[in-house]
Amino acid sequence: MMRPPAEIGIPLEEVESPALILDLDTFERNLKRLADAGRRLGVRLRPHAKTHKCPVIARRQMALGAVGVCCQTVGEAEAMVFGGIDDVLVTNEVVDRVKVNRLVSLAKQARVAVCADDAGNAEALNAAAAAFGARLDVLVEVNVGANRCGVEPGRPALVLAEAIAALPNLNFAGLQAYHGAAQHIRDFTERRSAALSAAKKAGATKALIEGAGLPCERVTGAGTGTYRFEPESGVYDEIQAGSYVFMDADYGHNLDEGGGAVSEFEQSLHILATVVSRPDRARCIVNAGHKALSVDSGMPVVDGDEGARYVGASDEHGKIEFAESRRGFDPGERVRLVPGHCDPTVNLHDWIVGYRGNHVEALWPVAARGAF
Amino acid sequence: MMRPPAEIGIPLEEVESPALILDLDTFERNLKRLADAGRRLGVRLRPHAKTHKCPVIARRQMALGAVGVCCQTVGEAEAMVFGGIDDVLVTNEVVDRVKVNRLVSLAKQARVAVCADDAGNAEALNAAAAAFGARLDVLVEVNVGANRCGVEPGRPALVLAEAIAALPNLNFAGLQAYHGAAQHIRDFTERRSAALSAAKKAGATKALIEGAGLPCERVTGAGTGTYRFEPESGVYDEIQAGSYVFMDADYGHNLDEGGGAVSEFEQSLHILATVVSRPDRARCIVNAGHKALSVDSGMPVVDGDEGARYVGASDEHGKIEFAESRRGFDPGERVRLVPGHCDPTVNLHDWIVGYRGNHVEALWPVAARGAF
Repeated sequence: MMRPPAEIGIPLEEVESPALILDLDTFERNLKRLADAGRRLGVRLRPHAKTHKCPVIARRQMALGAVGVCCQTVGEAEAMVFGGIDDVLVTNEVVDRVKVNRLVSLAKQARVAVCADDAGNAEALNAAAAAFGARLDVLVEVNVGANRCGVEPGRPALVLAEAIAALPNLNFAGLQAYHGAAQHIRDFTERRSAALSAAKKAGATKALIEGAGLPCERVTGAGTGTYRFEPESGVYDEIQAGSYVFMDADYGHNLDEGGGAVSEFEQSLHILATVVSRPDRARCIVNAGHKALSVDSGMPVVDGDEGARYVGASDEHGKIEFAESRRGFDPGERVRLVPGHCDPTVNLHDWIVGYRGNHVEALWPVAARGAF
Repeated sequence: MMRPPAEIGIPLEEVESPALILDLDTFERNLKRLADAGRRLGVRLRPHAKTHKCPVIARRQMALGAVGVCCQTVGEAEAMVFGGIDDVLVTNEVVDRVKVNRLVSLAKQARVAVCADDAGNAEALNAAAAAFGARLDVLVEVNVGANRCGVEPGRPALVLAEAIAALPNLNFAGLQAYHGAAQHIRDFTERRSAALSAAKKAGATKALIEGAGLPCERVTGAGTGTYRFEPESGVYDEIQAGSYVFMDADYGHNLDEGGGAVSEFEQSLHILATVVSRPDRARCIVNAGHKALSVDSGMPVVDGDEGARYVGASDEHGKIEFAESRRGFDPGERVRLVPGHCDPTVNLHDWIVGYRGNHVEALWPVAARGAF
């Protein structure tokens, strides 16, 4: 792990760049808002830790009432359990032989659940659990619209649920029903409609399974873009929002009922960059490129400055162009960038630098950075 | 740092995925081919370590005759010096106050050079060098076509060179003249022409500086896409190719004289992935997405299988679609992916798993992973 880019107590302008900086006041408001929304909506919260990869943040989420966290890899789940979280759901299929063993070992140390969409994989999970003398909770992942992993809703899900329930070291623990593609549908009505369509498929599948006499103890899913909608259906027990803690430019493009930008969560996370070159009046170069931020969902945005546009990244450089009216930034000036996509951006950093006002208050290790 | 995904001696099929795997025979051929080319072309080699971020590999390059390595960040330079490399050129501007101090401290432990394109930055470098009692080699970065950092060729470069030479703790050490945008021009003749245009600008600038009575001890630049061309000009003393050790899908699209794919270097690096889901006959999902590979220069390519196409990544998933005639891959099967862009992909991993034939022979830490 790299050394931290700051020390506790220093002013923000002395933080080495590039660095991930977190406005703690804003972050705490985001945490509280989802916790309040969960209570209002009558669903449990199981925030996704793939966003922050940081057990310190996961424990803050637990302290506000989350029942556990979601992870996407066994390595993340290990980092969370070792960092003090005792209830983890891996919202993914785990297939690699060594990773199956690591997962089952972890299930002897904490409450661990995993998803499956294949009977052969369920048998491999059962064999490993038996070898370790463990019991593993397994959810059936259902394809509710994302067309990624998951069995089709209805009968294929029932068949797999029954196969899991018949295996002695597995416990059929419900349905994973996450519609990833719905999270970034910009229009409010279309986004809600996609989420409710997912809920309908999940609900019908749950009814089919329970009609066959198999208890379906939970339906879990939803994200920062749709968490308000799935609970309307009465189908979901748990919501899995993750990005709400930080937000990013991509989520910032979602629209609310009135057609304005969504606003229930605020941007708390930025990439602090320094201008390293000002080759001419129209542009400058900052020290944050592909190795400090991810452009998979679009370019980062220069915070609070519509006259400056981050137009392209190379490995260690970012190019910012200025509108004609702008003075621009000179070498040594600091720029705050809103990440295009927070999850893969966080995964490029070893430390989250938490600040309040103008001073560094916390240095949190991104313990699951690179944890496959 | 994460635990390695393999142990020395195990067969390749037991490596945990996703993992960066390196075919050592191919890798060694690549190393030797550039070393031979450097001798043939009459230029020194200073390979770019931003590609591999691995001092073990840098020492292999030195053993074959490289005079030193290039780095892009101070953190990389530290990792290289601490890993046994005693001559490092930072091919970039260093502006952050703490990073300037780290750079100057390093210059007391090894031969360290850095680039500048701004007189104010040169003064800051000089002040730090004076405070540490160090002397620092500084190259003027010249914009030879990339339109990123760098002063314009000719008089602006002379003015900055003279300013650097006048500062007591700096040594004007030559010109950094790298045309990044030329590296991936597909057509051979156009690529050569862009490289020679860069060389012409660098040559004229060098002549101007020497004409003013200031020795210009080296001109350094070039990359894997153009290293054959710059030396034709007689202007360049050093070439900085980096990607040649691994290669990637993007470089694989460059064309040679005859219009075929370039072939002097072979693909030695792959991302080993596992199929985690086979939702239908037309596609499968592998466990390598944005957190295991970078898509900034295009999608990875399924190695040796034209009937299988990696069509999209999400954070932890990759979607592969099959041509109709293909059987496809089932859960548990392994897939080798050619990274779209090797540098930012390597930066996502803590270990390079080196194999020969079918067995793991080496586990090399990516010591400068995340080193800003």
